Amino acid sequence: MKLFKKVAIVGVGLIGGSIALAIKKNRLADEVVGVCRSKETLLLARRMKAVDLISRDLEIIKGADLLIMAAPVGMIIRSAPEISRIIGRDCLVTDVGSTKKEIVLKLEKIFPNFVGSHPMAGSEKRGVANASPGIFKGSLCILTPTRNTKRSALLKISKLWAKLGSRVTVVTPSAHDKILSLVSHLPHLAAFCLIDIIPDDFLKFGSNGLKDTTRIASSEAEVWKDIFISNRRPILEAIERFQKRLSAVRSALRKKDLKFLEKVLVGAKKKRDSLK
Amino acid sequence: MKLFKKVAIVGVGLIGGSIALAIKKNRLADEVVGVCRSKETLLLARRMKAVDLISRDLEIIKGADLLIMAAPVGMIIRSAPEISRIIGRDCLVTDVGSTKKEIVLKLEKIFPNFVGSHPMAGSEKRGVANASPGIFKGSLCILTPTRNTKRSALLKISKLWAKLGSRVTVVTPSAHDKILSLVSHLPHLAAFCLIDIIPDDFLKFGSNGLKDTTRIASSEAEVWKDIFISNRRPILEAIERFQKRLSAVRSALRKKDLKFLEKVLVGAKKKRDSLK
Repeated sequence: MKLFKKVAIVGVGLIGGSIALAIKKNRLADEVVGVCRSKETLLLARRMKAVDLISRDLEIIKGADLLIMAAPVGMIIRSAPEISRIIGRDCLVTDVGSTKKEIVLKLEKIFPNFVGSHPMAGSEKRGVANASPGIFKGSLCILTPTRNTKRSALLKISKLWAKLGSRVTVVTPSAHDKILSLVSHLPHLAAFCLIDIIPDDFLKFGSNGLKDTTRIASSEAEVWKDIFISNRRPILEAIERFQKRLSAVRSALRKKDLKFLEKVLVGAKKKRDSLK
Repeated sequence: MKLFKKVAIVGVGLIGGSIALAIKKNRLADEVVGVCRSKETLLLARRMKAVDLISRDLEIIKGADLLIMAAPVGMIIRSAPEISRIIGRDCLVTDVGSTKKEIVLKLEKIFPNFVGSHPMAGSEKRGVANASPGIFKGSLCILTPTRNTKRSALLKISKLWAKLGSRVTVVTPSAHDKILSLVSHLPHLAAFCLIDIIPDDFLKFGSNGLKDTTRIASSEAEVWKDIFISNRRPILEAIERFQKRLSAVRSALRKKDLKFLEKVLVGAKKKRDSLK
């Protein structure tokens, strides 16, 4: 028996489109429908056979037993009330937002069967044109249940991500946001600032080091503005922590404190080398 | 006719070893000799056929018509006086250090035929084991002549790098150091600090974004400590510039100034997308 009868995906971009493709490929649902504001995106999603039915009208989600919100964070939050008026109260709902506390707090009040998800499988690319069913394979998917989350909902969402190839892990929404502020949001913010301060006529001297360090600065402003605002407090703390370390290095450099510099460099290398 | 009779390479690591391999492959010299402190490195370099003769004794460089200094920045500077007592005054000398002002200022006083080079073809990897003759292909090599540089020396060094596949460009030592402080040294320093402030138990949540942004934090402390000290002033200015931008973003985030955030994000993406 298939895991779901009708899956509705709201926001058919890189992640939403990849989920749709992976659900089809693994035959996890009888039907996958996609809803999105852009007609072009929808037509492309259908041509890629990511979805069976498409519409710009939310009514198409009616009767779904799984709904996945795959729009930018702000849009996920804004669209929830209208979606809840269309789908049934039994419908399992999840989202793929990169921040969790704000989303989970609001959405678990609106949907009786909500579980927050964060599949860490994005990239600086965007759009259904870059979607692929394999992007979840081996990647981490963080689920953020609360004491209000139904056990049955958590199990089923966990099963879904595992079937798509993700390694599933569970943390609280607050812990998620704190962790992500340091392992993802701050690195993005640093990349944006690092490239932004380089004068245009210096750019041609950038080599592979600069390219890798700032690859994620090619990410879409619309997506990241939402993430920064939604996870404001942890990110502010992360920036502060980063600036303190930068100031310590700056001061060591000013004093030619080789011992401190070496300690930071050796420690950083050890940590980086430990990343799988 | 070959470009050189005897090429001596002091420091047979990733860059020195790759130069040796590329010179052999392109038959640019009758003989290539390598000198280095580590016996293991030398034996490996000879086994890889990067060099014809090896020694831990500097005397082996005697009679060279091209000498390439490919050790860390501090070592390049410290070893110059002894090297100058062994090689002839006609010998063409270059280095591959990642900083130029300090090196050029000191070495052009010691060697009558000196030209500073910076082949931007390194990586976080190190050692002759990772050397390859192809690493210069299409990469930028910055030469930093001064008014004391002999035109014939500049032309010959320029020809050498072009033969190895580099795109050669010329700037002053000061301009080089200012440019590199922003396109390379600061990104390295940021990568070191970004990974260093992540608690150990958060590291397993790092995805591709973090890996790319901090790849260069795997670089060797010994190499980078030298670079930071040698290019201290421009790097201090670059850190200050970076911290100002971070503070501006932090303040915008605190005030939920979406307009400013969007401006930074859109501008950064545009610059990053323009990198070839």
